[in-house]
Amino acid sequence: MSYLMRTEIGEQPEVLRRIADEEWRAIQSVAQQIRDQGIHAVFLAARGTSDNAAAYFKYLFEIQNGLPCGLAAPSVVTLYRAQLNLHGALVVGISQSGQAPDVVEYLAHARANGALTLSLTNDPESPLASASHFTLLLRAGAERSVAATKTYTGTLACIYLLSEALRGQHDAPQRLHHAAALIEQALQSEPRVQEIADRYRYMRECVALARGINQATAQETALKLIETCYVMCKAYSVADFMHGPFALIEPGFPCLLFAPDGATFATALESASKLRAGGAETVTFASNEEILRLARMPVPMPAGVPEMLSPIVYAVAGQLFAYHLALARDLNPDQPRGLQKVTRTL
Amino acid sequence: MSYLMRTEIGEQPEVLRRIADEEWRAIQSVAQQIRDQGIHAVFLAARGTSDNAAAYFKYLFEIQNGLPCGLAAPSVVTLYRAQLNLHGALVVGISQSGQAPDVVEYLAHARANGALTLSLTNDPESPLASASHFTLLLRAGAERSVAATKTYTGTLACIYLLSEALRGQHDAPQRLHHAAALIEQALQSEPRVQEIADRYRYMRECVALARGINQATAQETALKLIETCYVMCKAYSVADFMHGPFALIEPGFPCLLFAPDGATFATALESASKLRAGGAETVTFASNEEILRLARMPVPMPAGVPEMLSPIVYAVAGQLFAYHLALARDLNPDQPRGLQKVTRTL
Repeated sequence: MSYLMRTEIGEQPEVLRRIADEEWRAIQSVAQQIRDQGIHAVFLAARGTSDNAAAYFKYLFEIQNGLPCGLAAPSVVTLYRAQLNLHGALVVGISQSGQAPDVVEYLAHARANGALTLSLTNDPESPLASASHFTLLLRAGAERSVAATKTYTGTLACIYLLSEALRGQHDAPQRLHHAAALIEQALQSEPRVQEIADRYRYMRECVALARGINQATAQETALKLIETCYVMCKAYSVADFMHGPFALIEPGFPCLLFAPDGATFATALESASKLRAGGAETVTFASNEEILRLARMPVPMPAGVPEMLSPIVYAVAGQLFAYHLALARDLNPDQPRGLQKVTRTL
Repeated sequence: MSYLMRTEIGEQPEVLRRIADEEWRAIQSVAQQIRDQGIHAVFLAARGTSDNAAAYFKYLFEIQNGLPCGLAAPSVVTLYRAQLNLHGALVVGISQSGQAPDVVEYLAHARANGALTLSLTNDPESPLASASHFTLLLRAGAERSVAATKTYTGTLACIYLLSEALRGQHDAPQRLHHAAALIEQALQSEPRVQEIADRYRYMRECVALARGINQATAQETALKLIETCYVMCKAYSVADFMHGPFALIEPGFPCLLFAPDGATFATALESASKLRAGGAETVTFASNEEILRLARMPVPMPAGVPEMLSPIVYAVAGQLFAYHLALARDLNPDQPRGLQKVTRTL
């Protein structure tokens, strides 16, 4: 394997362990600040892959900390010149490069308008880090593939630890070490993923489905497929999918379904039945045997993945699928047409 | 024209006028409550078309009132049983039928957890109306087409008036009457839209692009195309599109671009140039001649549309495009396969 993307996919367990070992203290201190300042809401500014990590943040902090979160629309500040009242809010900017100009400007605005500001980035010297009160580091090493992989799961890992720190869970780093081991197990699904990739050589469009916290996984897999395979893939919550887009389903329509165990599993199972009844071609990532049996192409995942960590583990399966599909299509996953590693929008 | 969808598209000016004349007083009283209670953030619960209206709400209230807004994830409450702290927040539920069980449950939870709650619905007797402190009515009459049209722009109209009321603009109803007249002008683009629809008879996928407040327009047009034409259409902010999905662009790749005048126009123009350089097939809805000249298929829109009302006017052009494309594909736009008018998810 000589592609950067595959090398970086393989580095993810090590990145998680580094975050657990080296970033936990900084994370605990940010959590203390959030508590001290009586933060009542969180707004997250990010683009692309980082925006998918922001979706994970929203679910996790709402579920575990009861803290309502929303995604920011940077253009409100950068183009419309709104004056947002952000007193009592935490504003989080996410960008692996820390260069995204609109995210940087949004953070600077938030800081000037009363918010506590936090950046998640791979570069401590970046403009984003300078613009915010606190910075948490992804510690992923240089990411050279245009398609982000290890900085995505690294961001999720920092978010996980911050949520755990905020609710006083002192054993969170050990649980992140466990997640690293689960990624290693998930990487063992690679032969299976490689085997089925050929079947989708000529797939032109598909949907990626999940519910709840794995909405982030569906979105991130969709973006990886778009970037590396030029497949028109759209992510949906299975709930939203039933409101309209289900009309897309005809025999053979391909659906990737991420269905880990947990609170959302029952709705995923119900959707899997409807998709099967509609003749959809389902590629299902799950550990539950009942839902795997409903799939046209089951991809078994490790058992016993804690639900709140499942987006970290399942994202890896999505990365492998995008990577092997790119190879099956004779594309170079490291060189998506028309893209550069750092995208600058205002 | 015998299809319900087309009849209801034509009813939109009348719905807007009815809202301006009959709902303004109730809207002003809700605005007074929002002021009195010192609301510091807004969270919006909605699915499908209503979720696109929620995106309009977010941009409008952030731009015009500096009030940070976020979209809610109902499953956090309905499936994960989170206890959100929503003191000082306004929580808005949007559902034309008022039946969406997860939106109703989210509103009830928000009300029990300290939020001021507001519903936007077409049915004053619905469970959603009962669950919330206040209700604003869409006054759209029965909507019989599965693909929502007049309830979408009706929702936008209520949102517009509420934002204007909150900042003390007493002439807002007159401006909504003006928007109704602009819709009538936009409906005159129908022969042009009908003329170009045939060209997309066999289009399988496309993207719908906009920036800022017309993000809602791109999303809603994408949903209409999916529901009525089974075209895999994904909406993007042009800013997000440049982060990855731009890799989709190859000669002939179809892009719908909504580019009204205003604060975001310069970025839309820049994107139009990049799309042209990449050989994309652009269908551009705009009034500016420079950007129309860059389009493969320009669709001229009325001049002088106020930016904050442009999503109401441009949505109508998107509806017409979806409607005529459905006819060109010999599909019945009133009967999307696999869908019913009211979708129930928990």
